[in-house]
Amino acid sequence: MLIRRLAVIGVGLIGGSLARALHRAGEVGEVVGCGRGKANLEKALELGVINRYRHDVGEAVEGADMIFVAVPLGAMASTFAAMRGHLAEDAVITDGGSAKASVIADAIEAFGELPANFVPGHPIAGTENSGVEASFPELYSNRRIILTPTEATSDAALAKVKKMWRLCGARITAMSVEHHDEVLAATSHLPHMLAFSLVDTLAGMKENEEIFRYAAGGFRDFTRIASSNPVMWRDICIANRGALGEVFRQFSENLSALADAIERGDGDRLLATFERAKAARDRYVDGVLDSPVKISHRGVFRE
Amino acid sequence: MLIRRLAVIGVGLIGGSLARALHRAGEVGEVVGCGRGKANLEKALELGVINRYRHDVGEAVEGADMIFVAVPLGAMASTFAAMRGHLAEDAVITDGGSAKASVIADAIEAFGELPANFVPGHPIAGTENSGVEASFPELYSNRRIILTPTEATSDAALAKVKKMWRLCGARITAMSVEHHDEVLAATSHLPHMLAFSLVDTLAGMKENEEIFRYAAGGFRDFTRIASSNPVMWRDICIANRGALGEVFRQFSENLSALADAIERGDGDRLLATFERAKAARDRYVDGVLDSPVKISHRGVFRE
Repeated sequence: MLIRRLAVIGVGLIGGSLARALHRAGEVGEVVGCGRGKANLEKALELGVINRYRHDVGEAVEGADMIFVAVPLGAMASTFAAMRGHLAEDAVITDGGSAKASVIADAIEAFGELPANFVPGHPIAGTENSGVEASFPELYSNRRIILTPTEATSDAALAKVKKMWRLCGARITAMSVEHHDEVLAATSHLPHMLAFSLVDTLAGMKENEEIFRYAAGGFRDFTRIASSNPVMWRDICIANRGALGEVFRQFSENLSALADAIERGDGDRLLATFERAKAARDRYVDGVLDSPVKISHRGVFRE
Repeated sequence: MLIRRLAVIGVGLIGGSLARALHRAGEVGEVVGCGRGKANLEKALELGVINRYRHDVGEAVEGADMIFVAVPLGAMASTFAAMRGHLAEDAVITDGGSAKASVIADAIEAFGELPANFVPGHPIAGTENSGVEASFPELYSNRRIILTPTEATSDAALAKVKKMWRLCGARITAMSVEHHDEVLAATSHLPHMLAFSLVDTLAGMKENEEIFRYAAGGFRDFTRIASSNPVMWRDICIANRGALGEVFRQFSENLSALADAIERGDGDRLLATFERAKAARDRYVDGVLDSPVKISHRGVFRE
């Protein structure tokens, strides 16, 4: 059995699905859930996702040899701080945060240094549903897990986290913290900002109700991610503001050039931009689809 | 029989589907197709969409009592000019252009004034396929047709165009030219610009292939419209640059404010924006979906 006792801090879709997958694989002795809401934890107990629960993080991690932190990015710092002095000697910690530099900074602040047994991670998986009721053991099957180990990370801890995710059927990719944050800023965080901002702009126009009446189909697809959880996205924006700011800047330049070309009536420039974009999307995005690996982003990016 | 002879200038998905619907309703005597490509017109003939064809616009409209212009916006001016001197006395002209002020300006330039028998229109319908092979008689069933008659438009011409679209099962909305162009700029043209620009920005980043590897699911939905026809969208941008520029300006202000809030780490501002956007989308866009009228935009906006 790979894991004697798993502590899941934040028992929702992400944490619950990990627990279910490990239960099903027969590779976890006991799962201890942790969270603030009693109803959710009782539900998790009833569903067999966890074996028992604690509201206190320190109590929840006692004796655990694997700790999975699946709380919003804004709650990472206090969660790590609450673990101090309660960790077993062989405890390995990993997380599911959508930005990695901020989680690492939170860990350093809480522990004084980056613990060797901490393996920063990000499962690129999810559905449009949330909460422990939505969790299922196959969530990570064929999905990508990005791990961003640092120089401080011990080989043993990294190996154990990799084994854990492989038991869930996931495919593991390692990359640097900076690269993870840049890639996610470009492919997930910026698109969310654009969708939120577009819908907010239209909602602020006069006769907005009539405007939305003509907004269906492609507009619905385009703005679906604007229905995402606002608190989660506030936290992601702030946590990843460095990388997000940089890709924001590049996009703004591109968009300004496009607006200028429209104002000038520069058809050649417009055509060149649209052709490049269409070629890239047809090649890369539809290419990804045709491959056996279908990846999706937690809670929002999905198939 | 409502129409003795229908001339369809541009026999693709839009023009072909109108011809098919009128044939099926038994409300058209003869359909004359017009276009530059022989293969496409032969195909239309073989499929029974048209009864005969001409490559010359003037010849195609001879004796027609209804003319439907379904050419790209960039070809409207030359198409109208080619009709001069060939129109029957009872000819009614309508079109399917995605921007209306530019089509009206083109008509005024070609005819010296806006003809009383011209009814500017825009069927908000389509599929992701194009060409006459993709046309089908039900395309306009329960779809919205926006007509933008002006003070010059005769009641008789307007009534005939309305009857024609009703025979196709469409729902007709009348609005001013300016309002049409604003609404479409906000809900269709701007979203296309954002999708094209985002994909182009990412394609221009180093390691773009790796970036797109993590771009699936929501990103795919968000950028689907960046796979649209570049020539058609170049024409739309230029044709509707006035209204598009205005909504671009409003969006840019909103987006800059969002970028500033991220840079400052102003969580309250971010949360307020995201909550407003989510509320608007959940209410209006999903609300539209729950209503019996499902509308879609030609070639791109679809269900």
